Amino acid sequence: MAAASRAVIVSRPVTFVTGNAKKLEEVKTILGQSIPFQSLKLDLPELQGEPEEISKEKARLAARQVNGPVLVEDTCLCFNALKGLPGPYIKWFLQKIGHEGLNNLLMAYEDKSAYALCAFSFALGPDVEPVTFLGKTPGKIVPARGPNDFGWDPIFQPDGYDQTYAEMPKEEKNKISHRSRALDMVKSHFAEAGYNFAPSKETISPV
Amino acid sequence: MAAASRAVIVSRPVTFVTGNAKKLEEVKTILGQSIPFQSLKLDLPELQGEPEEISKEKARLAARQVNGPVLVEDTCLCFNALKGLPGPYIKWFLQKIGHEGLNNLLMAYEDKSAYALCAFSFALGPDVEPVTFLGKTPGKIVPARGPNDFGWDPIFQPDGYDQTYAEMPKEEKNKISHRSRALDMVKSHFAEAGYNFAPSKETISPV
Repeated sequence: MAAASRAVIVSRPVTFVTGNAKKLEEVKTILGQSIPFQSLKLDLPELQGEPEEISKEKARLAARQVNGPVLVEDTCLCFNALKGLPGPYIKWFLQKIGHEGLNNLLMAYEDKSAYALCAFSFALGPDVEPVTFLGKTPGKIVPARGPNDFGWDPIFQPDGYDQTYAEMPKEEKNKISHRSRALDMVKSHFAEAGYNFAPSKETISPV
Repeated sequence: MAAASRAVIVSRPVTFVTGNAKKLEEVKTILGQSIPFQSLKLDLPELQGEPEEISKEKARLAARQVNGPVLVEDTCLCFNALKGLPGPYIKWFLQKIGHEGLNNLLMAYEDKSAYALCAFSFALGPDVEPVTFLGKTPGKIVPARGPNDFGWDPIFQPDGYDQTYAEMPKEEKNKISHRSRALDMVKSHFAEAGYNFAPSKETISPV
């Protein structure tokens, strides 16, 4: 990680790759104005593998397409009884079998514990190895409770709370969510690295 | 699909992309000498998505890397109660939760039916859209029986048989397996298209 004394001039705002308005909203709320970014929906391949590797590879592909600094995000919902699965494949499971189906996957197990995992990867550009930040929130899988407008939020109840993600007020959820934890690390990284966002058309260059 | 009258000269043997010796063996047994091919282990990204799309994209990527004709293969194990999942992600589920874990996924359901799906995609070269062949064998998920040396074979019992894939003699399994059904389609396609394998160094060209 670059120290503040080795400031890096970044010629463009960071492109946050997403096509999900809800995610963009959450990220904006948490990051505030600390990092200039723009959002862009890119048609990137979704990869199989371990969460950290999937995230890094996505950042590499995005940086090549954007030819500039990118931030990518992936979310996993990991069941401990299933050794971390569905994990990166949660999207497909949610889509095909829904909240009840996800609960059913654990029918054979007393252990309903799970963790929500958020991976952000930041790449300065196409030739720079991405840095990954993993935010994790432990909890358990429960029958759906609360508004049904954001993925698997109704079936995830974080440890120490009586409410599911879906039932919690947004500000409360943002304090402890996997996404906010990962974004806190992104923020710290940006602060420590001392990136200098210069709105020019020059390419990225270490000073 | 090209008719036999529009023969296509293929300048090189087809590269069958695999790093799995068991799969190579099965494919050789079924295809025999009808198609000249060589095998190659390529480091291709594994994609998420629907089986047919995953297969086509893999063929596109492989054809670009090989710069010639390629055949790629993917296997899915699809549980009907889970709307086709784990499907393309079966590898990770098998690796992490094993045969017992896979059976446990269906604990909540009376319906233990499943199908084994094999997708082959063939691309003539990097600029030719791949053709996909899907072979499907219906059956059910059972507690593991038989030798444990080939993936999920011990927990898949094809319809109309008392034995699991793992318990069946190889020749018997090869008659009805998802892989052999897909490969039969590959064979027919090659026969109908009338590809002409000319061992030269010229590029692929329609005649």
